Amino acid sequence: MDYALLLDGFERAHGGAGWPRQRLLHECLRAAIRDGTLAAGTRLAATRALAQELGIARNTVLYAYEQLACEGYLLPDRRGTVVADVAPGPLRVKAPPPQAGLARRAQGLRTLHNAALDGAPFAPGVPDLHGFPLAQWRRRLERAWRGLAPAQLNYGDPAGEPALRAAIADHLRASRGVVCDASQVFVTDGTQGSLDLCARACADEGDTVWIETPGYGGALAAFRGAGLTIEGIEVDGEGLAPSAADWRARTPKLIYTTPSHQYPVGVVMSLARRLSLIEGARAAGALIVEDDYDSEFRHEGPPLAAMQGLAPDAPVLYCGTFSKTMFPGLRIGFLVVPPALAPQLASMRAQSSAAGRTAEQLALAEFLRSGEFARHLRRMRRLYRQRRDALVESLERHLGSRAEVHGASAGMHLALQLTDARLIDVAIARDARAQGIVVNALSAHAMPGRVPSATRWNGLMLGYAQVPAEQIDGLVRRLAGVVDRADPEPPDS
Amino acid sequence: MDYALLLDGFERAHGGAGWPRQRLLHECLRAAIRDGTLAAGTRLAATRALAQELGIARNTVLYAYEQLACEGYLLPDRRGTVVADVAPGPLRVKAPPPQAGLARRAQGLRTLHNAALDGAPFAPGVPDLHGFPLAQWRRRLERAWRGLAPAQLNYGDPAGEPALRAAIADHLRASRGVVCDASQVFVTDGTQGSLDLCARACADEGDTVWIETPGYGGALAAFRGAGLTIEGIEVDGEGLAPSAADWRARTPKLIYTTPSHQYPVGVVMSLARRLSLIEGARAAGALIVEDDYDSEFRHEGPPLAAMQGLAPDAPVLYCGTFSKTMFPGLRIGFLVVPPALAPQLASMRAQSSAAGRTAEQLALAEFLRSGEFARHLRRMRRLYRQRRDALVESLERHLGSRAEVHGASAGMHLALQLTDARLIDVAIARDARAQGIVVNALSAHAMPGRVPSATRWNGLMLGYAQVPAEQIDGLVRRLAGVVDRADPEPPDS
Repeated sequence: MDYALLLDGFERAHGGAGWPRQRLLHECLRAAIRDGTLAAGTRLAATRALAQELGIARNTVLYAYEQLACEGYLLPDRRGTVVADVAPGPLRVKAPPPQAGLARRAQGLRTLHNAALDGAPFAPGVPDLHGFPLAQWRRRLERAWRGLAPAQLNYGDPAGEPALRAAIADHLRASRGVVCDASQVFVTDGTQGSLDLCARACADEGDTVWIETPGYGGALAAFRGAGLTIEGIEVDGEGLAPSAADWRARTPKLIYTTPSHQYPVGVVMSLARRLSLIEGARAAGALIVEDDYDSEFRHEGPPLAAMQGLAPDAPVLYCGTFSKTMFPGLRIGFLVVPPALAPQLASMRAQSSAAGRTAEQLALAEFLRSGEFARHLRRMRRLYRQRRDALVESLERHLGSRAEVHGASAGMHLALQLTDARLIDVAIARDARAQGIVVNALSAHAMPGRVPSATRWNGLMLGYAQVPAEQIDGLVRRLAGVVDRADPEPPDS
Repeated sequence: MDYALLLDGFERAHGGAGWPRQRLLHECLRAAIRDGTLAAGTRLAATRALAQELGIARNTVLYAYEQLACEGYLLPDRRGTVVADVAPGPLRVKAPPPQAGLARRAQGLRTLHNAALDGAPFAPGVPDLHGFPLAQWRRRLERAWRGLAPAQLNYGDPAGEPALRAAIADHLRASRGVVCDASQVFVTDGTQGSLDLCARACADEGDTVWIETPGYGGALAAFRGAGLTIEGIEVDGEGLAPSAADWRARTPKLIYTTPSHQYPVGVVMSLARRLSLIEGARAAGALIVEDDYDSEFRHEGPPLAAMQGLAPDAPVLYCGTFSKTMFPGLRIGFLVVPPALAPQLASMRAQSSAAGRTAEQLALAEFLRSGEFARHLRRMRRLYRQRRDALVESLERHLGSRAEVHGASAGMHLALQLTDARLIDVAIARDARAQGIVVNALSAHAMPGRVPSATRWNGLMLGYAQVPAEQIDGLVRRLAGVVDRADPEPPDS
């Protein structure tokens, strides 16, 4: 495949001479994949090789590939990057059975949690599991099971056990400023389950959903799986930053956002931005999906209340999870919906999902009521703040001149923005991983839609919940070494 | 609203004079709802009243309403039937927020399990919960939790715990003739989870899925939720009966079927039908979703092996659940996929769903390995067969001349086909329920697509797993009384 020729032909055909090289390459490759010039299964040139062949910067190629992967046109595999099967509908019917592989919407997603990296320093998303009071939890469970009547082995309330819904509502009102009663709370099997429910209950296939870019891969998976049209919307220093044109030209049905601690960059959405987002959503008839995944851990400044409670009857679907506050394997999360939607959602749940796990839900309700949950949270807050302080301090010491810390005020991870825009976060993350330091590249969280803002967010994501304070300085020193050795690319022309 | 005028105008406009009245009424009402003549929220005339006004049979009206409800155009509520909100896409964006209610795909579904009817005689779908060895299961759970290391509180293998996958594979090979190894088994949270996974992994929004009609409402919910196009396909005495025209004009991507014990009519799919379905699926590049929900309970004749094991590398996704064999609240089911699909599905799971519940999965694996599961199944088989024998005998005694028993050879429910085609099963089911006897009308299980075959399957579904043998005869006598008092409609003209 002569890429130079391909690019040249495309540029002439589309008069795209004016476009930045990255967009040109991205659109050219996408067109070639769509019209079959690049057939499914074709292995693309390595980024470095292609960059040389075309005489452009390597990051230009890296971002174009990343973008196409987000859109499902490319599949990264162990040996590089191959073209995905994106044959149009009419053809798919005649394609061979399972061997043909997964549906288009099941392709080009990102791994939510890589078990191979568990416990590795700075791998994000997992709380300190040794800090969890396992014996206490076991006792709650055993008590709940012993109290269970045979009838309680049956399907449960599709909305969740009333006792748990009430306990969650109390917790949210007290600690997150969420305005709700138990009837608005729906128990799910975690954030993925909550996002899936939002998509199916409140949007039809083809409807537009906004996702922050860079953003959370789990949201991409849930919304693409539900057949929605994904539009990545830029995140700036104040959080999700839709333009007037976005509201007009890409009017959303759902808006996914992480205002308390943006995933992955950690920005806290400003109050002004929150209010204008609520306004915009109201005007567009859209619902905001507020994912409050790790907001229970606030390290400095006043706790910011959830958007859900910011305006009376705000058009917000509020998602929370016990994966961070309890443990991921528990598989219990929740969704809080506006009062008007609650009865309809309850009947939809009764028609679309089977519920149960009564003993586990009652045990969790007791864990919350008894105060054991609050005590555990306080212990973890102290622990995470200690680790965060150690991390911020060593980052300052070893990388202060070359990177800027974002999002350290809350949660279990922070973001490191590289000062030198010519450094390639994707490459640095790869090199660090080779040394057992698991830092995710911010640009690897770019979302589909228009060319994402990944070029603006060029840096690393560090999770610190599982890293003992005394190990942090040594690890950061090694990470700094990796950044030192990273070869800067000439500015993209 | 003058329905006579509406119908008359539609008939002239569409030259539909040739159509059967039921289709005419159905198409006419649908058009009126689409073009807004019947606005969202409008309450339709009662079936009896409308039948009189139009001078047609009441069952014609009942079936038309049922069909429109299946398609999401009508919403049954406590006081009758109202028009659903089916505003077209472009309009929806400008609609007011949550108050606007659920997405179209979340409407017109059926209740999967009505908790209000729990324990009521003949309510289907729930095993005998008092027969479950709860203490034994509790011990397994406690042991698993006590053996759990903190690291096992983390996200689990997205495909399921290896020990459980292996135990399930062994069980299926031995008892169901399923040809698989552990790598093809994926643990889900039940059949709804399995069907959802099939839809998202193997079909794109808009792809066609075949559902048996009459059929299982849970399949409708899962596939509509995933944005697939639903096509109801007739069920005859040999099971799913697609015509050559169906294969040609409505070529499926997925084919949902319950060959071991059709839901709800209980027919066992003939071997010839199974083989031709596999052939057709191969030719169309479609995958068969085989839901083997209650096949562990076989009361007479040789156990029929699953379709999955019938042909080498059959294009079959095999679904099973522990909701019937253990208890519904457990929320553990499984999906067995073709070898070629397994690795791809594993990576898709890692990208789209978070797993956990390690202790519960290990406990279940032990329950299977230890033989406790097999012993429990044997006890339940004896119990259900006893209850089935009692039910079949009383049905023969009290309704023998007026109804024919189907699907009694396996499972936890049977179907009663009314001999007098002029009786309306929907009306009989309503009257019986008023007397505390919960029998579902077969025609209420009609699926969307072309006019369903509900008119051919006109009868009742009776679940017997929870009804003590000694109570059965008295209940059936009362049911027979209800059938006696049912007023037959004049044959539909």
